[in-house]
Amino acid sequence: MIGKFYGIGVGPGDKELLTIKATKILKEIDIIICPESVKGKGSIALNICSEYLKDDVEILPLTFPMTYDENVLKKKWKENSDIIYKKLKSGKDVAFLTLGDPSVYSTYMYLLPHLKEKDVLINTIPGITSFSSIANNLNIPLATSEETIGILPLRKDANKLENFLDNYDNVIIMKPSHASKKIAEVLIKKGYENNFVMVSKSGTDKEKVVTDINRLKNEKVPYLSTVIVKKNKI
Amino acid sequence: MIGKFYGIGVGPGDKELLTIKATKILKEIDIIICPESVKGKGSIALNICSEYLKDDVEILPLTFPMTYDENVLKKKWKENSDIIYKKLKSGKDVAFLTLGDPSVYSTYMYLLPHLKEKDVLINTIPGITSFSSIANNLNIPLATSEETIGILPLRKDANKLENFLDNYDNVIIMKPSHASKKIAEVLIKKGYENNFVMVSKSGTDKEKVVTDINRLKNEKVPYLSTVIVKKNKI
Repeated sequence: MIGKFYGIGVGPGDKELLTIKATKILKEIDIIICPESVKGKGSIALNICSEYLKDDVEILPLTFPMTYDENVLKKKWKENSDIIYKKLKSGKDVAFLTLGDPSVYSTYMYLLPHLKEKDVLINTIPGITSFSSIANNLNIPLATSEETIGILPLRKDANKLENFLDNYDNVIIMKPSHASKKIAEVLIKKGYENNFVMVSKSGTDKEKVVTDINRLKNEKVPYLSTVIVKKNKI
Repeated sequence: MIGKFYGIGVGPGDKELLTIKATKILKEIDIIICPESVKGKGSIALNICSEYLKDDVEILPLTFPMTYDENVLKKKWKENSDIIYKKLKSGKDVAFLTLGDPSVYSTYMYLLPHLKEKDVLINTIPGITSFSSIANNLNIPLATSEETIGILPLRKDANKLENFLDNYDNVIIMKPSHASKKIAEVLIKKGYENNFVMVSKSGTDKEKVVTDINRLKNEKVPYLSTVIVKKNKI
């Protein structure tokens, strides 16, 4: 019989932010797939959930290169889905780990069309997002009452940000590391230099909270960072 | 010594979607505050987490009327925060329950300014949001790659929705129950009548999934519902 396939959101970094459902599944699972950007680099997601795993669990790192070349990516997703399918066909249960939540900007979702084509039953388990963790840690709302929220990944450029700040009450900027200087400039231009917080590596012992616009402008920003802008106040 | 105060996100309805952190705190807590919209109506949030509570826990329902009258609300929040503060001063630990996530459109956040004024240490624990739960259950992404997400509460009117659909790749409509007919009309007008899903009472045995625009237009929509619109596809 073919094994069961799970996508598991492990949250932003704190091992206690996994759900009861996620830990129950992890305790039973035979094979854990850890996405890596570079082969042998290791997996933050695996570190977060390591204490919930079976002693004899098989850890299978799969490389998902960080590139914008769609052809490279599509070939890799197909290859990786074939590897996963082969494991499932051997009767083993397989779980794919995702930092944060699988439905929010995860590599995992690119695998699903390939697995859906086959006879695989897919179960995806939600996780706490970085922005939810950050807001709760700071005891601030992402939004209240009639306020709107806009979520914007800024991997390539920061051009959309001005429009977002004009239109939304609260703006969440994902993956700000490459555009942090530009983000700081836009926040200053729009008069929101005191209305933001950036948190890097939320929920880990390397967590960094930045509310000084000069630090956002001048310091190197880690990849695992999120910026929250609240037009009313932070 | 003054007790500790917690805000706890209990997720959308499935008791296994609480985090490990939330259940650990709930097992130790002396007094649970359950928000009710009408006195004596009961609390969905309490039902979700009841099995994690101490046997001798004190359950304290507090009424937060569903009104848009700011004066009524402000008076009530102040009153309720005074009740909570009195309990904390007696040395008891108190937890306030929130459906979904405390940072996303919750009553809880209105209490915090009153408690922050006093010498209360506040710990807010994130929860899984309805929209994350829905997307993961359906194995669909809320967003991938460079896509944007807009989150819009439609308590009063649906006028903003057209603008949202023009500007964002994915739109999440919170609290659609009073505007469902209008939402259906806008989706048809914009050609997105096949690009939406509405889920009511997600994660409970009363869960309802609607993808037929005529049902959205004509059926009564429960209060605990969320609509996800994906312009690319659902």
